[in-house]
Amino acid sequence: MSLLVKGGTVVGPTGTRVADVLVEGEKIVAVLDPALTSTIIATPAITVDEVIDASGKYVIPGGIDAHTHMELPFGGTAASDTFDTGTRAAAYGGTTTIIDFAVQRTGEVVQDGLAAWHAKAEGECHVDYAFHMILGGVDADALKAMDQLVADEGITSFKLFMAYPGVFYSDDGQILRAMQTARENGAMIMMHAENGIAIDVLVQQAIAKGQTDPIYHGITRPAALEAEATNRAIALAEVAQDCPLYIVHLSASQALEKVAEARHEGRNVFAETCPQYLYLTLEDQLGAPGFEGAKWVCSTPLRSKHESHQRDLWKGLRNNELAIVSTDHCPFCMKDQKELGLGDFSKIPNGIGGVEHRVDLVYQGVVDGKLSLERWVETIATTPARMFGLYPQKGIVQPGSDADLVIYDPNGTTRIGVATHHMNMDHSAYEGVEIKGRVGTVVSRGEVIVADGNYHGRKGRGKFLKRGLSSYLM
Amino acid sequence: MSLLVKGGTVVGPTGTRVADVLVEGEKIVAVLDPALTSTIIATPAITVDEVIDASGKYVIPGGIDAHTHMELPFGGTAASDTFDTGTRAAAYGGTTTIIDFAVQRTGEVVQDGLAAWHAKAEGECHVDYAFHMILGGVDADALKAMDQLVADEGITSFKLFMAYPGVFYSDDGQILRAMQTARENGAMIMMHAENGIAIDVLVQQAIAKGQTDPIYHGITRPAALEAEATNRAIALAEVAQDCPLYIVHLSASQALEKVAEARHEGRNVFAETCPQYLYLTLEDQLGAPGFEGAKWVCSTPLRSKHESHQRDLWKGLRNNELAIVSTDHCPFCMKDQKELGLGDFSKIPNGIGGVEHRVDLVYQGVVDGKLSLERWVETIATTPARMFGLYPQKGIVQPGSDADLVIYDPNGTTRIGVATHHMNMDHSAYEGVEIKGRVGTVVSRGEVIVADGNYHGRKGRGKFLKRGLSSYLM
Amino acid sequence: MSLLVKGGTVVGPTGTRVADVLVEGEKIVAVLDPALTSTIIATPAITVDEVIDASGKYVIPGGIDAHTHMELPFGGTAASDTFDTGTRAAAYGGTTTIIDFAVQRTGEVVQDGLAAWHAKAEGECHVDYAFHMILGGVDADALKAMDQLVADEGITSFKLFMAYPGVFYSDDGQILRAMQTARENGAMIMMHAENGIAIDVLVQQAIAKGQTDPIYHGITRPAALEAEATNRAIALAEVAQDCPLYIVHLSASQALEKVAEARHEGRNVFAETCPQYLYLTLEDQLGAPGFEGAKWVCSTPLRSKHESHQRDLWKGLRNNELAIVSTDHCPFCMKDQKELGLGDFSKIPNGIGGVEHRVDLVYQGVVDGKLSLERWVETIATTPARMFGLYPQKGIVQPGSDADLVIYDPNGTTRIGVATHHMNMDHSAYEGVEIKGRVGTVVSRGEVIVADGNYHGRKGRGKFLKRGLSSYLM
Amino acid sequence: MSLLVKGGTVVGPTGTRVADVLVEGEKIVAVLDPALTSTIIATPAITVDEVIDASGKYVIPGGIDAHTHMELPFGGTAASDTFDTGTRAAAYGGTTTIIDFAVQRTGEVVQDGLAAWHAKAEGECHVDYAFHMILGGVDADALKAMDQLVADEGITSFKLFMAYPGVFYSDDGQILRAMQTARENGAMIMMHAENGIAIDVLVQQAIAKGQTDPIYHGITRPAALEAEATNRAIALAEVAQDCPLYIVHLSASQALEKVAEARHEGRNVFAETCPQYLYLTLEDQLGAPGFEGAKWVCSTPLRSKHESHQRDLWKGLRNNELAIVSTDHCPFCMKDQKELGLGDFSKIPNGIGGVEHRVDLVYQGVVDGKLSLERWVETIATTPARMFGLYPQKGIVQPGSDADLVIYDPNGTTRIGVATHHMNMDHSAYEGVEIKGRVGTVVSRGEVIVADGNYHGRKGRGKFLKRGLSSYLM
Ligand SMILES: [Zn+2]
Ligand SMILES: [Zn+2]
Ligand SMILES: [Zn+2]
Ligand SMILES: [Zn+2]
Ligand SMILES: [Zn+2]
Ligand SMILES: [Zn+2]
Ligand SMILES: [Zn+2]
Ligand SMILES: [Zn+2]
Repeated sequence: MSLLVKGGTVVGPTGTRVADVLVEGEKIVAVLDPALTSTIIATPAITVDEVIDASGKYVIPGGIDAHTHMELPFGGTAASDTFDTGTRAAAYGGTTTIIDFAVQRTGEVVQDGLAAWHAKAEGECHVDYAFHMILGGVDADALKAMDQLVADEGITSFKLFMAYPGVFYSDDGQILRAMQTARENGAMIMMHAENGIAIDVLVQQAIAKGQTDPIYHGITRPAALEAEATNRAIALAEVAQDCPLYIVHLSASQALEKVAEARHEGRNVFAETCPQYLYLTLEDQLGAPGFEGAKWVCSTPLRSKHESHQRDLWKGLRNNELAIVSTDHCPFCMKDQKELGLGDFSKIPNGIGGVEHRVDLVYQGVVDGKLSLERWVETIATTPARMFGLYPQKGIVQPGSDADLVIYDPNGTTRIGVATHHMNMDHSAYEGVEIKGRVGTVVSRGEVIVADGNYHGRKGRGKFLKRGLSSYLM
Repeated sequence: MSLLVKGGTVVGPTGTRVADVLVEGEKIVAVLDPALTSTIIATPAITVDEVIDASGKYVIPGGIDAHTHMELPFGGTAASDTFDTGTRAAAYGGTTTIIDFAVQRTGEVVQDGLAAWHAKAEGECHVDYAFHMILGGVDADALKAMDQLVADEGITSFKLFMAYPGVFYSDDGQILRAMQTARENGAMIMMHAENGIAIDVLVQQAIAKGQTDPIYHGITRPAALEAEATNRAIALAEVAQDCPLYIVHLSASQALEKVAEARHEGRNVFAETCPQYLYLTLEDQLGAPGFEGAKWVCSTPLRSKHESHQRDLWKGLRNNELAIVSTDHCPFCMKDQKELGLGDFSKIPNGIGGVEHRVDLVYQGVVDGKLSLERWVETIATTPARMFGLYPQKGIVQPGSDADLVIYDPNGTTRIGVATHHMNMDHSAYEGVEIKGRVGTVVSRGEVIVADGNYHGRKGRGKFLKRGLSSYLM
Repeated sequence: MSLLVKGGTVVGPTGTRVADVLVEGEKIVAVLDPALTSTIIATPAITVDEVIDASGKYVIPGGIDAHTHMELPFGGTAASDTFDTGTRAAAYGGTTTIIDFAVQRTGEVVQDGLAAWHAKAEGECHVDYAFHMILGGVDADALKAMDQLVADEGITSFKLFMAYPGVFYSDDGQILRAMQTARENGAMIMMHAENGIAIDVLVQQAIAKGQTDPIYHGITRPAALEAEATNRAIALAEVAQDCPLYIVHLSASQALEKVAEARHEGRNVFAETCPQYLYLTLEDQLGAPGFEGAKWVCSTPLRSKHESHQRDLWKGLRNNELAIVSTDHCPFCMKDQKELGLGDFSKIPNGIGGVEHRVDLVYQGVVDGKLSLERWVETIATTPARMFGLYPQKGIVQPGSDADLVIYDPNGTTRIGVATHHMNMDHSAYEGVEIKGRVGTVVSRGEVIVADGNYHGRKGRGKFLKRGLSSYLM
Repeated sequence: MSLLVKGGTVVGPTGTRVADVLVEGEKIVAVLDPALTSTIIATPAITVDEVIDASGKYVIPGGIDAHTHMELPFGGTAASDTFDTGTRAAAYGGTTTIIDFAVQRTGEVVQDGLAAWHAKAEGECHVDYAFHMILGGVDADALKAMDQLVADEGITSFKLFMAYPGVFYSDDGQILRAMQTARENGAMIMMHAENGIAIDVLVQQAIAKGQTDPIYHGITRPAALEAEATNRAIALAEVAQDCPLYIVHLSASQALEKVAEARHEGRNVFAETCPQYLYLTLEDQLGAPGFEGAKWVCSTPLRSKHESHQRDLWKGLRNNELAIVSTDHCPFCMKDQKELGLGDFSKIPNGIGGVEHRVDLVYQGVVDGKLSLERWVETIATTPARMFGLYPQKGIVQPGSDADLVIYDPNGTTRIGVATHHMNMDHSAYEGVEIKGRVGTVVSRGEVIVADGNYHGRKGRGKFLKRGLSSYLM
């Protein structure tokens, strides 16, 4: 089975060019100068079964969302997208790989957590998937498990939390030990960088004062405490002999400053941001009247529009102080889920759903002149692959790589909303947003799974990816 | 005429993979998964005339040296390499494109300067070449000429000097006007950033005190005055509405700090360094006994080994605060040339020759663990092409690009010295340095011009390249 | 003749306390615990001729304005205050010492310039005065003159200009030489830090575009060019072996950053700001309708209210990144003077008058919670005295010091305006501003020269002060 | 009883002058111009009982050591100086006020801790004393106690620990609450800024590896973890609405950077360093052969001589990034005390004794050209008084202030060592150090307690000082 994507403008991390992409089975087998394609493939051995005309369109590597939480249990409920619904929505949006988070909680065996997540995902996914491992209970066994997961399981990144005391929280000693272990086995430490101990004081004080609306979720998580935790994680990684460190869902300018400073010093410190921080704000969304703001309760929180966060985050994406855009997809419906926090913002499940819209939302930055085409592809596909040990299997349009492709139409339009999205959510965080571009055809390992808005994929076709070590270290 | 480079590890800016590269005529026409190459090219239409076995070797895009001065008149003499000898040496060293500097002096017509340089280069070059334009006399006519050169001549970058008063020097008003013009026409301003007015005071004072040895060339050009000029150029570019700015031959940590700060702010500010600053020092080379140090008189000067310059420059190459390694190749023989400065360092022609050794010297950084393979290729080929409007024709191994390739042998060894080099110099700045790697085969536009140390190229085969605007802007 | 200032709250740079101040002749002879004053001075040898009741009031050292330009020739006219009118106005406002600028222009003999200024001031001043020397033509003779002025004339500070090419401008070589000389003889270099070469390009371009209103004076002098020049001056002072450097009339946040950075590094770099930069803005004053804005044409210019300049300058005064508040008093009447620039802002004489209001305007910062009482006294009196070699003769309320005192009433009110001020100006830069405090009694060398708004001083009583070297160096 | 200190050079924070100081009872009642002293005090009402000739000497305010730990229980033993021996040694060294730390431990009542310390000190001290309060168990009761201590007890500063988990450690929530309380009641939060949670991991790992020598005490407390904690404390103080913060015993350049940055932003963040960090190093002292290094086990630890810590700390003292030099006097004898840690550095009681030598050791910086006379006086006396609510009673030579004076002889010599010191220690941290200056006469509240090396004071004459709020805030 061969597929030829003809005449598109292939966008790579260093530039664009018109080229044909020849797919054989699940792999890209050749990238060809269009002038010679007909000659080269005019061999009896090659049968091009299908030709996709991509002229006037961008051909990019399939998106990689390095941060999702399908079916995550949280606060007595669970994220509303299953691996089935969530990866199907991802596919619609041009994302052909997700890296989800398996979870170990205090007292649990790490491998058991991993097994549980495999059980949830197995046979359910529409696109390929991999796992990071959340360590909620770093102890001697967990440290040993880190080695085993790196060596045997294709799990090469571990997320720790400086927030959520009593749930996921690690103290600085646990963090240091995990970092030392990662420094030895080559893994990446991912960090939820917020000072949860101090935040919980602010939360309790707010509740005690009757400040229970969703906006107080943001007000009690000040940027200073994101920056502080970011600085602390960087310092601990330094003490751990420059253990590679990746800050997740960075939202505040002040935290970006810390990352930028470490990078300026040549440290292996990286960060992602998410579309919500690039477009939404504390006042306009989280501060919506009544309980409406609950839709946008996530941590780190949306930041104030009266400060320069969004301008700085876009700048960071341009100059690679921010390496990646992930979604932190963690959807909860308003009904029965977000509503758990009626009258007490601290009980609202934390999370925003967006796995379907990332490729579009970052592309809008290109349209708006905030990002180059090259950085669009880098931040949504190439760098996630390099960062998390999937390159060159994923993240690039080159022979030998998986044939994960998106044909993206710069002349199309995408209107985001609950009426049209495919995520299992009763609302959209981006309701009414219009993107001046459109995901056309989506190819996953050589198979057209989305074409012109029609779905041709199926549950279970997505495979688990064992990842290697990061190839993005300096 | 087809060429197949088989089984090599193709190194690109984002990673490596084993792939076959099919060349037809002057162009790469396909990059192929080796498993399928035989099938794909088994068409009657394709005749592979030559196969190069690259297994166990790196296949990289031909090197691009973005800063050379062949035959440059300087201080009553001229750089000792002609376009003939210099480009032949470049080819030996894996550099298949140079960007040389045409010169306008005060009072001269810009186009006349360009014509003069075309006359020198035409029919002489062994590899492809392009020109930046030095503006030594920015006035209304020169500003108009900038527009014309960008529009018609494929000259899209202009070098100004904050040093050499009375020779190349532009004052801040001239710089500002040139930057405003560049901001309009899209050109890049390149800057020799040293405060020449202050330096000349120090030089005169040193000479007056009898401090005439070569080392005083370095001592009278302190790092503080490189940093100052760098900061000033950045400020003027800001006033010119963020005109793109490229700092040439950056050598001092303090100057790097200024570039890094501007980049942190999201400014279109770039810099190159040169191999001499990565390996040689004020004390060990410029301070060599007697007149020996004259070999290493160049501006900016070599910096002190007691400071952290080299560590910081390598760090800058890793984190892309430094984008490019060029040579500033400007060779003068000791005899009759450097000797002009016997007894007065200020009369020593400024320049070091190194066009032949750049690919090797930067590769040694990979061997030493200071740089990744990806950054090696980026800093010597991909980024120069993107920065200076040659991408994707040059700088990348992809279909449609020129078939400029280097097959580099990581198991070879290169010993640098006057006995073996091909530059027209009676000494080597790197005498005795040994590189743990070796340029094997060099392909220029589909033609093997170097193989196993034997030369197969010829004078005149190199073509002038009209360049486009930079595609590297943020 | 003895004077006893009783019961006031003496404010010094480190705190306040209630104390009596005993003056004998021109000097403070004792500062006394009020409880014991009557005992101590009950000796037959002491006759207290006059007692001033200062209870409920602040007793501070007489103000020192370290930057005035009486009778300065500028642009074909001259500053409208003579040493007579200007120092009388100063006295009214609680300033008992001014340091004015004698001027050497290119080609002139430095000592001739000094003599000319002595001739203007001699016998005219109401309060004590000293001179800085402006060097408009740094050459070998001028450098020698610097030594002589320091050694013999009590002139220990020299102002250079990076602006005003063709008038006062020094190039970087001249600046470096003057700094080297100052480094040897201990003098302070004062710098007008604006890149005048670049500014003149912007000015010409604006005029050419018909942008002739006063606001373009500000727009053509962007903050980036103040910051650039400040950085350059700091760099040159570093090359001159850390020559002490004092930036005059700093107005932009970006320039403050450069000063703060140098101070952080432990450098002897200092700066003053002026009341106009603390209260007035580009939009509200310089951008006043029609030609009205001409009143506020001064260099450095007023800065935009949409940026954080004023907030940052107050911050700098608090944390001593800014050492001094001077006025840069250089008054021109609208009629016949400012009007020279009707239709061409570049012809408007540069300057704002304010010598009378500095003590009040900075005190208002205390009322507004922006500054402590201690910093009020430091920035207007103690630090100017220490910085410019007048301490402990001036600037402090201590025995042995000159009896220059201001009794300041925190319960009084001062309304500023042309109807009530004593400067020779036909308008006020601060018209209508109301200060919640009032200069009560002013004592100059033991003599009450202002009391309750009535003037008791006289022309000619002010003496020339030979200054020593700065005692403020780190 | 009157005392006249005649002809000395009075050194104050802004300069020096020759003046006579008249003391009546416990107070300075006049500072007099020597020329007029005889006249002024020639009243029958004044009897000068004693005249001290201070000509050729410095007259400075009595030293204030803002950080001592007399009799502190630590690790199963207690600091070897009692309030009796420690304050007597202080007096010998020119320190006439100490601020010691009363201690509350987890579960204890704050007021009980204070009472216990009053009991230790009462009737024992040779010089005046005050208390800071250590809070080892921040809870609701402790927060209430803070208010009470500020309101009633003259305790206006509270020390928290980010180190010593299980002993003094507060978590970030406790710190935040204490800061919020301090922000309300005006108190100063003092912080031991080291990340003790991470340090304890390193300590356990070192011990487990058999790295038990004293030098590992320093190696397991890296500068990065002092900087981290300093940054965290500053961030928490920001969240607490800019609660005033004072970092104790700062030793690392990296921590100084954090303090400097906060001060640059205008924050009320202050720091002290100690003589040990200015003179002693990790390698030369803590790394002394065998168990010898135990003498210098203190926290924060001595820093490496291969880094720039000492140079930076002196720089910080010059530019007021460091406000104060205290001793953190906490002496333990080698015998029976330090020896507790033979074979396990973590059991060595932490502390260095130095209360006797601070005035001398900082003066040596003046001799060495590292500090001005004014900063000497500011850092050892004036600023401690202002910082901790003792000004103007203490810290300045002015009428109305306590007559605490040191006549310091710049022509004397002090040789430090166990043979001559008066602290209750069997060794000296500064054995053999020679100071080019000497404490001559020491006056405490009008009483000569040290003269020419002879002691005239007595136990019990020192009074407890209730302190006010800091008058040093910006
Ligand atoms: Zn998270
Ligand atoms: Zn997450
Ligand atoms: Zn150059
Ligand atoms: Zn060059
Ligand atoms: Zn000026
Ligand atoms: Zn002026
Ligand atoms: Zn401590
Ligand atoms: Zn302590």
